Amino acid sequence: MATFTEPRPIKKLIHMENDYSIGAHPNVMKWLSETNDLRTTAYGGDRFCEMAANKIKNLCHTRRVAVHFFTGGTIVNVTLLASALRPYQGIIAASVAHIQTHETGAIEAHGYKVLTVPSSDGKISAEDVRRLFDAHYTDPDHEHTVQPGIVSLANPTEYGAIYSLEELTAISDVCRKCGLYLYVDGARLGYALMAEGNDITLADMASLCDAFTIGGTKQGALFGEALVIANDKLKKDFRYMIKQNGAMLAKGRLLGLNFLGLLEDDIYFTTSQEANRLAMRLKEGIAARGYPFLLDSPTNQQFPILPDRVISLLSEKYVFSYIKRIDAAHSCIRICTDWATVEETVDGLLTDLDKAGDPLTQRISS
Amino acid sequence: MATFTEPRPIKKLIHMENDYSIGAHPNVMKWLSETNDLRTTAYGGDRFCEMAANKIKNLCHTRRVAVHFFTGGTIVNVTLLASALRPYQGIIAASVAHIQTHETGAIEAHGYKVLTVPSSDGKISAEDVRRLFDAHYTDPDHEHTVQPGIVSLANPTEYGAIYSLEELTAISDVCRKCGLYLYVDGARLGYALMAEGNDITLADMASLCDAFTIGGTKQGALFGEALVIANDKLKKDFRYMIKQNGAMLAKGRLLGLNFLGLLEDDIYFTTSQEANRLAMRLKEGIAARGYPFLLDSPTNQQFPILPDRVISLLSEKYVFSYIKRIDAAHSCIRICTDWATVEETVDGLLTDLDKAGDPLTQRISS
Amino acid sequence: MATFTEPRPIKKLIHMENDYSIGAHPNVMKWLSETNDLRTTAYGGDRFCEMAANKIKNLCHTRRVAVHFFTGGTIVNVTLLASALRPYQGIIAASVAHIQTHETGAIEAHGYKVLTVPSSDGKISAEDVRRLFDAHYTDPDHEHTVQPGIVSLANPTEYGAIYSLEELTAISDVCRKCGLYLYVDGARLGYALMAEGNDITLADMASLCDAFTIGGTKQGALFGEALVIANDKLKKDFRYMIKQNGAMLAKGRLLGLNFLGLLEDDIYFTTSQEANRLAMRLKEGIAARGYPFLLDSPTNQQFPILPDRVISLLSEKYVFSYIKRIDAAHSCIRICTDWATVEETVDGLLTDLDKAGDPLTQRISS
Amino acid sequence: MATFTEPRPIKKLIHMENDYSIGAHPNVMKWLSETNDLRTTAYGGDRFCEMAANKIKNLCHTRRVAVHFFTGGTIVNVTLLASALRPYQGIIAASVAHIQTHETGAIEAHGYKVLTVPSSDGKISAEDVRRLFDAHYTDPDHEHTVQPGIVSLANPTEYGAIYSLEELTAISDVCRKCGLYLYVDGARLGYALMAEGNDITLADMASLCDAFTIGGTKQGALFGEALVIANDKLKKDFRYMIKQNGAMLAKGRLLGLNFLGLLEDDIYFTTSQEANRLAMRLKEGIAARGYPFLLDSPTNQQFPILPDRVISLLSEKYVFSYIKRIDAAHSCIRICTDWATVEETVDGLLTDLDKAGDPLTQRISS
Repeated sequence: MATFTEPRPIKKLIHMENDYSIGAHPNVMKWLSETNDLRTTAYGGDRFCEMAANKIKNLCHTRRVAVHFFTGGTIVNVTLLASALRPYQGIIAASVAHIQTHETGAIEAHGYKVLTVPSSDGKISAEDVRRLFDAHYTDPDHEHTVQPGIVSLANPTEYGAIYSLEELTAISDVCRKCGLYLYVDGARLGYALMAEGNDITLADMASLCDAFTIGGTKQGALFGEALVIANDKLKKDFRYMIKQNGAMLAKGRLLGLNFLGLLEDDIYFTTSQEANRLAMRLKEGIAARGYPFLLDSPTNQQFPILPDRVISLLSEKYVFSYIKRIDAAHSCIRICTDWATVEETVDGLLTDLDKAGDPLTQRISS
Repeated sequence: MATFTEPRPIKKLIHMENDYSIGAHPNVMKWLSETNDLRTTAYGGDRFCEMAANKIKNLCHTRRVAVHFFTGGTIVNVTLLASALRPYQGIIAASVAHIQTHETGAIEAHGYKVLTVPSSDGKISAEDVRRLFDAHYTDPDHEHTVQPGIVSLANPTEYGAIYSLEELTAISDVCRKCGLYLYVDGARLGYALMAEGNDITLADMASLCDAFTIGGTKQGALFGEALVIANDKLKKDFRYMIKQNGAMLAKGRLLGLNFLGLLEDDIYFTTSQEANRLAMRLKEGIAARGYPFLLDSPTNQQFPILPDRVISLLSEKYVFSYIKRIDAAHSCIRICTDWATVEETVDGLLTDLDKAGDPLTQRISS
Repeated sequence: MATFTEPRPIKKLIHMENDYSIGAHPNVMKWLSETNDLRTTAYGGDRFCEMAANKIKNLCHTRRVAVHFFTGGTIVNVTLLASALRPYQGIIAASVAHIQTHETGAIEAHGYKVLTVPSSDGKISAEDVRRLFDAHYTDPDHEHTVQPGIVSLANPTEYGAIYSLEELTAISDVCRKCGLYLYVDGARLGYALMAEGNDITLADMASLCDAFTIGGTKQGALFGEALVIANDKLKKDFRYMIKQNGAMLAKGRLLGLNFLGLLEDDIYFTTSQEANRLAMRLKEGIAARGYPFLLDSPTNQQFPILPDRVISLLSEKYVFSYIKRIDAAHSCIRICTDWATVEETVDGLLTDLDKAGDPLTQRISS
Repeated sequence: MATFTEPRPIKKLIHMENDYSIGAHPNVMKWLSETNDLRTTAYGGDRFCEMAANKIKNLCHTRRVAVHFFTGGTIVNVTLLASALRPYQGIIAASVAHIQTHETGAIEAHGYKVLTVPSSDGKISAEDVRRLFDAHYTDPDHEHTVQPGIVSLANPTEYGAIYSLEELTAISDVCRKCGLYLYVDGARLGYALMAEGNDITLADMASLCDAFTIGGTKQGALFGEALVIANDKLKKDFRYMIKQNGAMLAKGRLLGLNFLGLLEDDIYFTTSQEANRLAMRLKEGIAARGYPFLLDSPTNQQFPILPDRVISLLSEKYVFSYIKRIDAAHSCIRICTDWATVEETVDGLLTDLDKAGDPLTQRISS
C-alpha cells in the first residue's frame, strides 16, 4: 500500500483553503461599477477615500486617527513597521507570525529583525513582551543586540485565535511603560470582532494601539487594507512612506470604494458574523465526528487534525490548505469560511467527511 | 496687480491632468463582474493570469518570455531592478526618469543608485550609455564608484517622446556588448506603439529588451502592469521577489482579468490610437493658436507652454498638471487624453483657450 | 542579607573576559613600526597586503583563493554574506550564532534573514542543513518564505566548540548538493586549528568552504580579519562590496602588516596552542574543584558554571564575561586565554577560586 | 609617436597622490607602543577613548557634545547620515561630494538618496540649500519625491576649498529654519582650520553643526575619524548604530590612542599648518612657472593643470592622482602634502617640473 504523501496544495473543485479565493462582495462591485465613469484626483486624494476614512473614524469613535489605504497585507505591514522603527530596532512578534514566516523576508529586506516569542496559536502576552524587553536592557551587551521597538500582533491570529480586551489592554500597558509601539495586523479583524466571546471594539483598538489595520481582502473586498494610525508620532509624512514602498495606487479611489462597499449597511460585520457562524457549524460537526483540532478557533479559520487517508479522499472534491504533519498518519489542514460561504457547502463537507471516515470508502466523489 | 502664483494642482471640473483619473474600460469591468463569483487559486496561480500571460506571449510572438503582473508602476520598477542588480551596481537612466524623480527614493530605499544622463525629453541614447560605461571602467578608482548594471528607459518617456526601432536597437546592442541589462518601463506602452511614426512592435521589445512592462493603469485598466521578462537569468525565483516586495496580490486573478479585458478585441491598441488622435488634435489646435510646446510629443501627453494668465483662466474649468515655470510670465502644463476622452472635450478646451487668450476675458466659465 | 545581583560586566584588575583586551603581539608591532615611514599605494593595493595574501594562500595550499582583509568581524561577515545572497535568500546559522545574536541586526540591516537551527554549543550539523533545506522546498508556499542561500558557521563556535573534519565535510557535501554556499567565520580559527583533537587544516577549509575568515583581532593582531574566498563566483567585483560597506581601509597595508606579523615564524599557531594549553589547565583546575561547565570546550574560551557567591568574590580581582543565569544560585561565566596570557595568571585564578569556594572567605583580595 | 594615454594612477617612487600613503605620526606610534601591554575594556569603553573624547570636548569648548570614534570616512559618513534620516529623506550635497561620487553607493545601499547641488569646487551655499528646500515643498507632488533631511558638506572640500565662518553660519541658519540637520565631513579638518584665511574654530563647528568629524587618517593617524555629535536628538542610542554598521572596533582603544597621539602638544594643528605651508610653496612654484589650477586651494591638496607631456615625464619619478582631462593636451592632477612631507620633496618636484617643461627633455630621471 502506497503511503500518503502530503498533497500540497490540494487542488479540487470546492475551494475552502482560504478566504480570498472569490471576488468581492456584490456591494463592493456596485460601488466600483457606479463610480467607474467619474474622474477624480489620483493617489488617494479623492472624495471616496475621504468618505471611507470618515466612516472608519466614526467606527473608531474618534476623529484623531489617520486612515490610509493599501492594496495588501505584506505591504501595509512593512510600511508601518519601517516607519515606526529606528534602524537598530526590531519587532516583537509571535514565532508563527505572518511577518516572521510568510512574507519572504519582507521585514528583513526593509532592514529589521523580528524578535520572536514562541507561540503555537499566534498569541503573545504582556508578560512575553515585558520579559523580552527586560532581557534586552539587563544585558550588559545590549548595544550589540537588536533593541525592541514595536510589538506586532495579529487579531485574530494566523491560527484564528483572538485576544480579549483584558489581554490587549495588558499588552498596551506594558508597551506604553516600555516605550514600545503597539501594532495590530487586522487582516481578518471583522472575524475577530464578531467572534463569540469577543469583547474588543474598534474604539478599543484605536485607544489601545498605536496603529492597526482593518483588513478588506480577506473580508469581502476586491482588495484593500485600511491602516488606522492613532499615535501622532506615526502620522507625520506617512504618505512619503506609502509612495516609497510602491504602495500608492494611482487610482487610489478604488481602495476607498472597496471600503465604502464593505462598510455600508454593516456588511463588513454581518458577513463576518455569518462566516463565523458557518465556521462554528463546521467546527462542531468535525468535533462531533471525533476529530481533534490544532487549537480552538472562534473565527472563520478552522484547523482540524485528520487522518491522511481522510484528507486524501476529501481532496478529490475540496481544496484545503495543508498546515503540517502531526504524526505518521495525521495532518492538520486549514478550512476557511468567508462572506460567500453557504450552509450547503459546510453541510456537504460534513457529509463527505462521514464518507471519507468510513474505512470502506474508496472514493467520495463517485 | 497680483502676480500669478503657480496653481498646483489646478483643481477643477474637467480632469485632463493625467490618464488615470477615471475607472476602467467597460470591458475590464465586464471581465471582473462576470468572474466575480468564481473561486480560484490565489496569488496569481489562477487560469485568468495564465490566459492573460498567454495573450501577451502571443503578442510578443514568443513563448520564451515570463509574464508577471503587478498592481503599480513603482513596485514593478523596483522589483525588477532590484532583482537584476548586484548590491554595488546602479541604473543608467535619464535625469528626468520617473525612478529618479518621482518615486520618493524607492530605488535608493532598495539600495541602488540611479546614474543619470542629462535629458530633457526623457530619452537617452546608445552613445550616452556607452559613454557612461566607458567612463566607469577607465576610472582607476572605479571600485570606489557605482558600477553600471542596467539601463532603464521609458517608452514613451515621461514627456511623451518615443524611441525608434533604430534607437532601441542601438541601445540594446551597446547593452549586450557591455554586459548591461536593458529594461523598458512601458507604463504607457500602448500610446507609444500606436503613435504616428512608431516602428517598434511588442515582438521587437521582447527581442531587444531583457525585461519590459506593458502598462495597464494608464491605459484603461482598473490597475495593473504586466512585466515581461525575456532574459532567462532574470526569470529564476522571480515570484520570491514579488512576494518580498509586497507585490503579490492575494486575489491575483484581478490582474489577469484586467489584462484580459484590455487585450480582448485589440481594445488596448484601439483605445491608445484614439487617445493619440485626440492628443494630436489638441496639439495642432494649441499650435495653431501660436503657443509653443516643451517638446513635440506624438503620444497622449502634451506639454504646451502657455501664459500664466491663460492657465489661470482655464483652471476655472479644467484640471491640468503644472510642470514648470518657463519664464516670468509663462509655464508648461501637461494635458492628457486617455481611453475615455471624447472629441467634444478636446474641442471645448480649444474654444476655451481662444477665450482665455483674449486679453479682455475676465472669466471663461461665465 | 542582600541578594546577589548579576554583576555585568564584572570590572576588576585582571582582564580575562575576552581575547581582545590587550594590544598586539610584539611581532605585529615590529612590522608596523619598521614600515611606518614607507609610502605605499592606498586601499590595500600595496605589497604588504600582497605578501600577506600570498602567505595565506601558501598555508591553504592553493593559489586559487582570493584573500581580502577587513578591520573587524561584523563587517567581514555582512560583506561576504550580502555578496553571496540574492535578496530573497537567507542564512542558515545556529540560534546562538554571533550574526543572529550579537551584531545588532547587521545582517537584517543588509536585508537578510537568519534561518536559525537550535543549538546550545553553536554547532550545527549536515542533517540540520538538509532538514531546513527540504522543509523549504517541500512547502507549497515556499515562495512566501525565505529561501536558504548560504550556511554560516563558526569554528570554533561562539562557545568554543570545534568541528571535526568529518562534520565539516558532511556539511560541505550537503551544501554542494543543495546549491548552498558554505561560509565559516574563523574569528578564532587559530584556537580551533591548534585544539587537541582537531583534524581540520587550512587546506581543508579552502577545499570545503566557499569562503572563510582567518581571524586576527582575537588572535594577537592589533586588528584585522582575513577573508579567504575559494568559490570563483564569490570573487567577482568583491572590492566594490568592500568599499560600499565602508570596509576599505585607506591605509590598507596595516591589515597586511598585522597578518605578516602574526604569520611570521608560525606565531599565529604557536600562540594559539599556548593559549589553548592554558585554557585546558584552567578547565582541568576548575573541574578538579568540582564545578561543571556549560560545555566541554577544547579552545581558549571556557564556560564554567559557578555559585554566584564565588563569582562575586572573584570579581573583586578579575573581569569575566557574564554569560547567563543557570539557576537561583549559579551562573555561567566566560573566561578566556589569549596570546598574552601567562601561566601565573591561570594558577593564581585557581588559587583564588579555592579561596572563593571556602564558605568562610569574606574577600579574596585582602 | 604614441599619443599620451591617461596615466591613472601614475605609479612611481615619490608618493604625492594623497595624504594617507605613509604610516602614523611618531607620537601616535608612541602611544600605541607604550600602551600595548595593557588590558582594557573592549569596544571603546576604555579610558583612552574617554581621554581622547575629553580632549576633543575641550577643543570644542563644550562638554555637551558626544564623541565617537570610527576607523574610516565612508563608514562614519553613512552611520551618521543613516542615523539622522527618516527612510524617505535625502541628503543635500555637492555634486562632487565624496558621498555622491566615491563611496560605491554606500549611501544608497543604506537606503538614502543624495540630492545634489552642482558644484565644481565642492562647496555649496545657504542659497543652494534654501532653493532645494523650497523647490521640494512648493512641488504639489512633493510626497512623490525625496524630502531633504540633512545637509552634508566637507570642510575642506574634496578639492581643498574651505568655508568661511560667514558661509557656514548662513548654511547653519537656513538648516535650522528649514528643520534640516547639518553635517560636516572633516576628513581633512586640520588643514582647513590651519589654512591661511580660515576664521572657523572647532567651537564654531560644535555650535553651528549638528554633527561633524575630525579626521585622523589623512592627518597623521594610523587610522581613525572622530565624530562629534552636538545635537541631542542625534546622540540617543548611537552606539547601536555603530555596532550595526560594523564600525565598533573590538580593540576600540586604538582609536582613542590615535587621537591622543595626534592631539598631544597640538601636533594635529602644527602638522596641518606645515603641510599647508608646503602646499602653498608648491602652489606658488607651479603658478610661477605659468601653469593654471583647477581652483585656488588654500589647503594641502593642489590641483594644477599641466600639459600631458609634463605629467608623463614627472610620472617617471612621482605618483600623483589623475583628476581629469581638461583639453586635448592638458590634464588636472592632484598633488598632496601631509604631516610627513618635507621641503626638499617640494623643491625637488619644482626643479623636476622645470626639467619636464623644457621641450628638449626626454627623461627627467636620468
